[in-house]
Amino acid sequence: MTENAVPESGDRIRITDRHGRTFEGIMMPHHAFSREEIVVLKMDNGYNIGVVPESVELLSRAEEMTKRSDVPLNPGPDRDSPTVSIISTGGTIASFVDYKTGAVHPAMTAEDIVRAVPELASRFNLRTQAPFSILSENMSPEYWVRLAEIIASELNDGASGVIVPHGTDTMAYTAAALSFLLPELSGPVVLVGSQRSSDRPSSDAVMNLLAAARVTQTDLGEVVICMHKTSSDTVVAVHRGTRARKMHTSRRDAFKSINSPLIAEVEGETVRFLSDYRKRIDGHIEINGPLEQNVRLIYSYPGLTADVFSAMLGDAKGVVIAGTGLGHVSSVLLDELRRLRDEGVAVVMTSQCLNGCVNMNVYSTGRQILKAGVIPAGDMLPETAYVKLMWALGRTSDIQEVEGIMRTSVAGEISNRRVE
Amino acid sequence: MTENAVPESGDRIRITDRHGRTFEGIMMPHHAFSREEIVVLKMDNGYNIGVVPESVELLSRAEEMTKRSDVPLNPGPDRDSPTVSIISTGGTIASFVDYKTGAVHPAMTAEDIVRAVPELASRFNLRTQAPFSILSENMSPEYWVRLAEIIASELNDGASGVIVPHGTDTMAYTAAALSFLLPELSGPVVLVGSQRSSDRPSSDAVMNLLAAARVTQTDLGEVVICMHKTSSDTVVAVHRGTRARKMHTSRRDAFKSINSPLIAEVEGETVRFLSDYRKRIDGHIEINGPLEQNVRLIYSYPGLTADVFSAMLGDAKGVVIAGTGLGHVSSVLLDELRRLRDEGVAVVMTSQCLNGCVNMNVYSTGRQILKAGVIPAGDMLPETAYVKLMWALGRTSDIQEVEGIMRTSVAGEISNRRVE
Repeated sequence: MTENAVPESGDRIRITDRHGRTFEGIMMPHHAFSREEIVVLKMDNGYNIGVVPESVELLSRAEEMTKRSDVPLNPGPDRDSPTVSIISTGGTIASFVDYKTGAVHPAMTAEDIVRAVPELASRFNLRTQAPFSILSENMSPEYWVRLAEIIASELNDGASGVIVPHGTDTMAYTAAALSFLLPELSGPVVLVGSQRSSDRPSSDAVMNLLAAARVTQTDLGEVVICMHKTSSDTVVAVHRGTRARKMHTSRRDAFKSINSPLIAEVEGETVRFLSDYRKRIDGHIEINGPLEQNVRLIYSYPGLTADVFSAMLGDAKGVVIAGTGLGHVSSVLLDELRRLRDEGVAVVMTSQCLNGCVNMNVYSTGRQILKAGVIPAGDMLPETAYVKLMWALGRTSDIQEVEGIMRTSVAGEISNRRVE
Repeated sequence: MTENAVPESGDRIRITDRHGRTFEGIMMPHHAFSREEIVVLKMDNGYNIGVVPESVELLSRAEEMTKRSDVPLNPGPDRDSPTVSIISTGGTIASFVDYKTGAVHPAMTAEDIVRAVPELASRFNLRTQAPFSILSENMSPEYWVRLAEIIASELNDGASGVIVPHGTDTMAYTAAALSFLLPELSGPVVLVGSQRSSDRPSSDAVMNLLAAARVTQTDLGEVVICMHKTSSDTVVAVHRGTRARKMHTSRRDAFKSINSPLIAEVEGETVRFLSDYRKRIDGHIEINGPLEQNVRLIYSYPGLTADVFSAMLGDAKGVVIAGTGLGHVSSVLLDELRRLRDEGVAVVMTSQCLNGCVNMNVYSTGRQILKAGVIPAGDMLPETAYVKLMWALGRTSDIQEVEGIMRTSVAGEISNRRVE
């Protein structure tokens, strides 16, 4: 074979194995879990198989079969169909199989997503953009603010709802940030991801996207996350943006609402609301920023000394501690906690247990920590408290006011209206 | 009333409320969750009630009723009964109600625990000691080593098993540390705690302790945690010490085994084994120490910059990162990760999802992190990996050897024998 004839993902090939058996189909990208010598083939019946080839024959190039632009972006809903914005940020969900060629395009735009899920385009007038395409582990607070601006502008410009395809690693952090930055919404903002890239038959991408689209057509006025509720393809869960946490590295039902019921679940065409939610408002919405970025999130652990804790904080304006149990840290940190409060640094206490509520009135250590000026965060997730503290410090540097904000529910992030 | 006549916890009192109703019983300590004016009374039927008193009459002092030393420490099992050591470290479980007086003694010794649960003393020849009595949030690696020494000495001195009453906040960290420090055991080492102090009818202390005692009489040769399996008083779960995590701030079934089945469950007299476990050995056991304490545990989050990460590490010999998803951090940290490996600092990757396994071969960020020399920790909990890294660095400073140790299962802390 010449260099040019080496088959690539998406090409139609014929493989002969060492037993002389032949297999024909679309060559898939090499899978990270597979042994190196294995070639994965999407056969005409739709199933993928892995074969160790003795020889490989190139039958036709992907490009020769279907030009991707042959698929119309918008096959044409009528003019009265609702407008939905898709603002793609990257991540696994943006790695889509082109159904015609079987090829995976890893850095897809929002338009590519639409092409891959024709049902979206047939139902909605879609507006798409991909302001950045990054793996979600590279998300940062600057992106959150930019995303909030784009979402506000889309909603103010007539979109009935916004879908944000996003990598799952930090999706919950982004959802929490958007919840605080956009306290009032004129339409649902739905973050959606997938845990399996679309070259695997078990991909959850399409189902989550269609569920997200359905949620955009409700009267919800919150930032939510749409992901598989179970490991089977039946129901999609709708999590409040301030309450979701990725609780598994790989399962399709990795996301769980912590200390809070689901807002809704989507089964087929039906969106079933399961708990109270904020309704969308009419009219213009605005961003409630900015974010103070000089904030830390620190999980405490036995052996964490005052010196190390102090070095971790540096010149931070605020810190969220994920303490042990009901909200404790070792007594060796007490002096440092007092010093921080004296210097106007906001210190917020959450629990590394994740489930349940901090209560620093039960044990003597907790009472001493409270006395040192540490702000209890109720049953807020550590990650949500981190984002919220950035937001609170973006509004005021008065420590009393910060405490008032942190103790009061802004976007459903704590169960009681106020932490006492 | 004179100063001397003010009733105290444990005294027998009669309360009259504003409706003229009277209530007689043992005065209980004020509960932190209760309103200040409420007095809690343990009535003769065993139930506690809260009353707002109009007047209070002191009937008799606790001391006048029962001298605590009247309860014999050891009502006398026969000489052939098994010997069990109770090494108390403090915590909620060590805050026991004296059944006769109803008074709570917050800083109990192991002997007090035995007096409070007479069944223990009637079945076993008990050896008790309380080398330290601290709230578990104040636990530190020095205590882990000291505790391991005492346990080894007790087992070598003929105890058939060891019970370690321990506060729940950091119980899982201690259990993991003991698992590595005591790789071979001649009897079960059972950490046990309670989530509710014993002045509450819902206390889980006695049931967990009795279950722990039953586990000491099996052929188990591991460090385990015995805590309620459900929120009802039916079954106690036996968790592997390297796999347990406190997953709720207050529920009695707060402890869960993560990425691993329970070793056993205890129902009444029965210990039902549910999965494979290491058996106790015959003969002398030794501590496999020491621990290198200059190690950090850092949860990564969006906005964590290279400068802050570097400051958090300081001069640490090792760090465990709880990354996002399959084991990722932002690409902005890559240079710092490479520098650390070059300088011989061990960097270990776990996932803040807690459930599931890191896999850094799937995405480009993961592959770059692996290439930077970061050690993947499989499905090990971040907290267990932190303790194990201390232990690995206590054995060798050769980074290749540390990597070999971290990737190999020592005490059931990873599911595969080796992380590849």
